[in-house]
Amino acid sequence: RVDGARLWDSLEAMARIGPGVAGGNNRQTVTDADGEARRLFQRWCEDAGMTMQVDRMGNMFMRLEGADPSADPVWMGSHLDTQPTGGRYDGVLGVLGALEVVRTIRDRGIKPRRPIVVVNWTNEEGTRFAPAMLGSGVFAGLHDEAYANARTDAAGLRFGDELERIGWRGDQPMGGRPIHALLEYHIEQGPILEAEGRQIGIVTHGQGLWWLHLTLSGRDAHTGSTPMAMRADAGLGMARIIEAVNRIALDHQPGAVGSVGHAVLAPNSPNVIAGTARMTIDLRSPDAGKLASMRERVEREAAGIAAALGLALTVEVTGHFEPVAFDPALTALVRDVAGRLGLSHMDIVSGAGHDACWINRIGPTAMIMCPCVGGLSHNEAEEITPDWAAAGCDVLLNTALELAGV
Amino acid sequence: RVDGARLWDSLEAMARIGPGVAGGNNRQTVTDADGEARRLFQRWCEDAGMTMQVDRMGNMFMRLEGADPSADPVWMGSHLDTQPTGGRYDGVLGVLGALEVVRTIRDRGIKPRRPIVVVNWTNEEGTRFAPAMLGSGVFAGLHDEAYANARTDAAGLRFGDELERIGWRGDQPMGGRPIHALLEYHIEQGPILEAEGRQIGIVTHGQGLWWLHLTLSGRDAHTGSTPMAMRADAGLGMARIIEAVNRIALDHQPGAVGSVGHAVLAPNSPNVIAGTARMTIDLRSPDAGKLASMRERVEREAAGIAAALGLALTVEVTGHFEPVAFDPALTALVRDVAGRLGLSHMDIVSGAGHDACWINRIGPTAMIMCPCVGGLSHNEAEEITPDWAAAGCDVLLNTALELAGV
Ligand SMILES: NC(=O)NCCC(=O)O
Ligand SMILES: NC(=O)NCCC(=O)O
Repeated sequence: RVDGARLWDSLEAMARIGPGVAGGNNRQTVTDADGEARRLFQRWCEDAGMTMQVDRMGNMFMRLEGADPSADPVWMGSHLDTQPTGGRYDGVLGVLGALEVVRTIRDRGIKPRRPIVVVNWTNEEGTRFAPAMLGSGVFAGLHDEAYANARTDAAGLRFGDELERIGWRGDQPMGGRPIHALLEYHIEQGPILEAEGRQIGIVTHGQGLWWLHLTLSGRDAHTGSTPMAMRADAGLGMARIIEAVNRIALDHQPGAVGSVGHAVLAPNSPNVIAGTARMTIDLRSPDAGKLASMRERVEREAAGIAAALGLALTVEVTGHFEPVAFDPALTALVRDVAGRLGLSHMDIVSGAGHDACWINRIGPTAMIMCPCVGGLSHNEAEEITPDWAAAGCDVLLNTALELAGV
Repeated sequence: RVDGARLWDSLEAMARIGPGVAGGNNRQTVTDADGEARRLFQRWCEDAGMTMQVDRMGNMFMRLEGADPSADPVWMGSHLDTQPTGGRYDGVLGVLGALEVVRTIRDRGIKPRRPIVVVNWTNEEGTRFAPAMLGSGVFAGLHDEAYANARTDAAGLRFGDELERIGWRGDQPMGGRPIHALLEYHIEQGPILEAEGRQIGIVTHGQGLWWLHLTLSGRDAHTGSTPMAMRADAGLGMARIIEAVNRIALDHQPGAVGSVGHAVLAPNSPNVIAGTARMTIDLRSPDAGKLASMRERVEREAAGIAAALGLALTVEVTGHFEPVAFDPALTALVRDVAGRLGLSHMDIVSGAGHDACWINRIGPTAMIMCPCVGGLSHNEAEEITPDWAAAGCDVLLNTALELAGV
């Protein structure tokens, strides 16, 4: 069993870096706070006997040597970056849980046969720089480096420049590292485990996703002196598309979600009809057919809405992955370990995207989840209990040891 | 007749201060650019023989002494501030047109009996700091100084602090200045004069307005893992309210407009259901009954929309004026002068709010309008012709001289 108190202390210490405004965190990717979090994590890992390598996307690989250094390593990890108003556990639990596993192994004087790699992936959240899971995506060969480096944030800053600025552009080439198996431990971020009263979620599948970035172009005009019939109102177009996304998601129940969390008007003045609106549409389903159908309907309805209002419309894909099925054998092992530890568990589909979804394409991958209070995540009030955190970490420890061999 | 070429040159010179991105201006109130515009205007006025006083809201009073210094002055003016993506003529024409009147009077060696005051009102646009017409509103006793100083912009800066910062807080107390009559010359900002082929609009009335600033509060949550039924989506509420505002305005045709040009989501992340939405609703009509009915329906429907989505709603009034009737005798004089000059003209209702709407409460006030191309304003592409500009300025000159006496 891991040291649950030590794991909790580490989570609390990390949460002090990049504090939010309501008890959570604002530690967005490749900010100064991200740099500070990386240095603390590096120090902790080195104190636990690991050595660091960093690749050209800033992904951090912390290696505990194995009895057989030539054996393919067992990987564990997640991400330390957060949403602008994010929780303390989303991603962080998977990174610091993996560190706790290594600390426990060292405490017990265990020398696993395989090396262990604890990984912190860069820009999992995708908020500042779309798409999400950017570091793991480049590592897994889904995106190229130039694409990633050129991503810009709302202030026009480039991902690659910001990574250099905080000093975390590493020298290691992308990908090409052997993976015996990868385990990502994460909070559920949804309501199911808590509602069902289970300690552990065995993640069999992950939802697919489309992120569509729309730009509507109309005409800036005076709100007072422009008759209703003479308008090309991009804000009204935006409103109708938000409503359409919601309706289309409801039409695809069960097993589908559709949202617009990002929307900006320009010039955004109370007495100017907005000439421009920009928005990101987020569509997800574990069912590839529903996912495709939602995308098709959203694009068709958005085009109709724009045309009816005299607006020009452009659509750019800023994120996409198809539904994921995790490695069945590895998933069965996790299920078996949870059972042997006497923990209540159930199979679950991940509603969120995870770095594991990309790594699953290049090596055997599984995910372990613990509940979170009220299913709340991407919210500073995100909460878990120390017992939940430790139980999932015990599954991570025992699965990793079984994979690494002693 | 005024010197139309000199007026046009002045308009072009002023447009070089605070240039926009598409040929217009971004010279928002109490910015450095506003300060620079004020200094240029001050210099031009002093060169034309006027002396300056500035009040505690930064309103600039440029006085040309009259043959009878004790007589109540004739006032002319408008505003030099612009929208973030504003035109070159909105407000500026009324200020520099008044300056051109004084220059013409001096050129001809005319000594009017009454003093003339050319005024530049602070923060007419209301974009950076709501409400619009703030300087003239405090001058006319509609708002108090403390209220005005405490208005904040999107960055949280206070109006009063910014006014100090640019060095344009004057020492003159608010209001209490005699006004024989005030004339505001302005571009129409709407399509009617051009469509009707008239050179001059005689403004008999102005629309009333409500600005309602709404805050919708729901719950930040993950777009992927939060089921549709568990959401409190402030962005969806915002969309439905934008649609309702549009429908309610259409239901009050003719003679009503309703718009949402300002809307902001927080945290505004593509994978976070927005926990907060803020928006400003702009409702206008020249009919007091329609205006009240629109406000009542908008507030009722917004409350219903919020309740149905589980959102908390707060409504703050950030701007309000009732429909305005300008001084009939003064309006008749303007109409008479336009006719005597052989200019085509028509009576018109102003769709926009103007400083003259506030001053009308404390002294005889009238407005003169010229057409603008395509009715377009609050847009960098706002355009007028030199002939249109000069024709309206001729009406301003001859009306002012008639009022001032020679
Ligand atoms: N786990 C998680 O919140 N990932 C962010 C990417 C996404 O699913 O939107
Ligand atoms: N004239 C003008 O554009 N004024 C701004 C205030 C308003 O929104 O009407």
